[in-house]
Amino acid sequence: MSVGKLYGVGIGPGDRELLTLKAYRILTTVPVIAYPTMENGKVLARALVADLISPQQIEIPMPLPFSPEKSSLPYYQAAASQIASHLQQGRDVAVLCLGDPMFYGTFMYIYKLLAPRFPVEVVPGISSIMAAAALLGAPLSYRDDVFSVIPATLQRETIIDRLSRCDGAAIIKLGRHFPKVREILRELGLIDRALYIERATWVNQRVIPIEEVQLSDITYWSLILIPSNSYGKISHCHPQ
Amino acid sequence: MSVGKLYGVGIGPGDRELLTLKAYRILTTVPVIAYPTMENGKVLARALVADLISPQQIEIPMPLPFSPEKSSLPYYQAAASQIASHLQQGRDVAVLCLGDPMFYGTFMYIYKLLAPRFPVEVVPGISSIMAAAALLGAPLSYRDDVFSVIPATLQRETIIDRLSRCDGAAIIKLGRHFPKVREILRELGLIDRALYIERATWVNQRVIPIEEVQLSDITYWSLILIPSNSYGKISHCHPQ
Repeated sequence: MSVGKLYGVGIGPGDRELLTLKAYRILTTVPVIAYPTMENGKVLARALVADLISPQQIEIPMPLPFSPEKSSLPYYQAAASQIASHLQQGRDVAVLCLGDPMFYGTFMYIYKLLAPRFPVEVVPGISSIMAAAALLGAPLSYRDDVFSVIPATLQRETIIDRLSRCDGAAIIKLGRHFPKVREILRELGLIDRALYIERATWVNQRVIPIEEVQLSDITYWSLILIPSNSYGKISHCHPQ
Repeated sequence: MSVGKLYGVGIGPGDRELLTLKAYRILTTVPVIAYPTMENGKVLARALVADLISPQQIEIPMPLPFSPEKSSLPYYQAAASQIASHLQQGRDVAVLCLGDPMFYGTFMYIYKLLAPRFPVEVVPGISSIMAAAALLGAPLSYRDDVFSVIPATLQRETIIDRLSRCDGAAIIKLGRHFPKVREILRELGLIDRALYIERATWVNQRVIPIEEVQLSDITYWSLILIPSNSYGKISHCHPQ
């Protein structure tokens, strides 16, 4: 008997219509579906595609630690070992991943553990960054722009350095780092260009002027876009 | 009579299955479809979704200059004016855009010309960068990585500076700039990490070791990925 195939399936930012045809096909036909869940009970990735999952499909919830201080490795190892036993029995397994699997995706942990042992196919997904740009009508990068994705978890000096060396940017993983980032944007004169969005494409999505964001409101699922600086500057490009 | 809606539809990197459900719905129902064509006769975006277009749909080819020396603005203005006349008559128009519309997409030119006058909805698409990463099994960015997209058209010193300030990168728009980029990667000690791919997800896709790429072969539709440096370094993460 041959082993099963491991699929890392990007399911996009949240809006069900932003699934790819390929992700849709795999999710509706694969015998086993695995997805991260939080120790606090949130099962976000599954919820986004819940109506596509049939009772015939085997589900593998993969609990992850809620606290960022806890190492997630033992959790991924436990999940990988469950997934591996299905693959060994010849069953294909799709691991759901919000956004894109290879772009800050949770799938990379499982990939690292299982790719050396099983055939893998990665299905790219729409990143929340592109979805947010589409919603906000914000051109991210244009012509010869450098575009950078910068986690807010980095040190203040590093964020300032990286921001000053790109033409457009997305700042992710805001959470409790939001005040630091907003201060940096004010200092660099970027605050008027910066756009803040929470839970892009979800039903409870919110777009808030960045100076009006309340610190108590910040969620992990928020990001800041700094649209391309060069896009606005092409002065001969006026509407007819 | 109300005006029509302008859709900027990301159709992804090439593989038809990487269309989103939303792009599929809009493409198969919208009365007017516009797409870039090259003066040299290539009609790439349309070819990728040709079997979805019905004879009832009105098509607007948008010729663009083949030579990069020619200004594309008059071409976009001519296309925008054709699109505008349909919108004014209440017909929705979908403009096809390879990859993602707001991420180095051709749609931004049309957007700039028409967004001030008509309602617009942008549909994000899978970028060729994410598609290439999925195909190559290349983790682009991980945890607190900075990820940068760097056009090869930039000056040597700028490319070196930007590359030394990120953890993962994609280098796009290679074309005749490939030799400069390969030399930079050798100098920075990045050549062994760098992955080269042409026409990711197309039927004539090619993956070639970067040191074996022939300069005569380089196409505009090629890119280099430099996967996350931190992904490989987590030494306790061995396969079980």
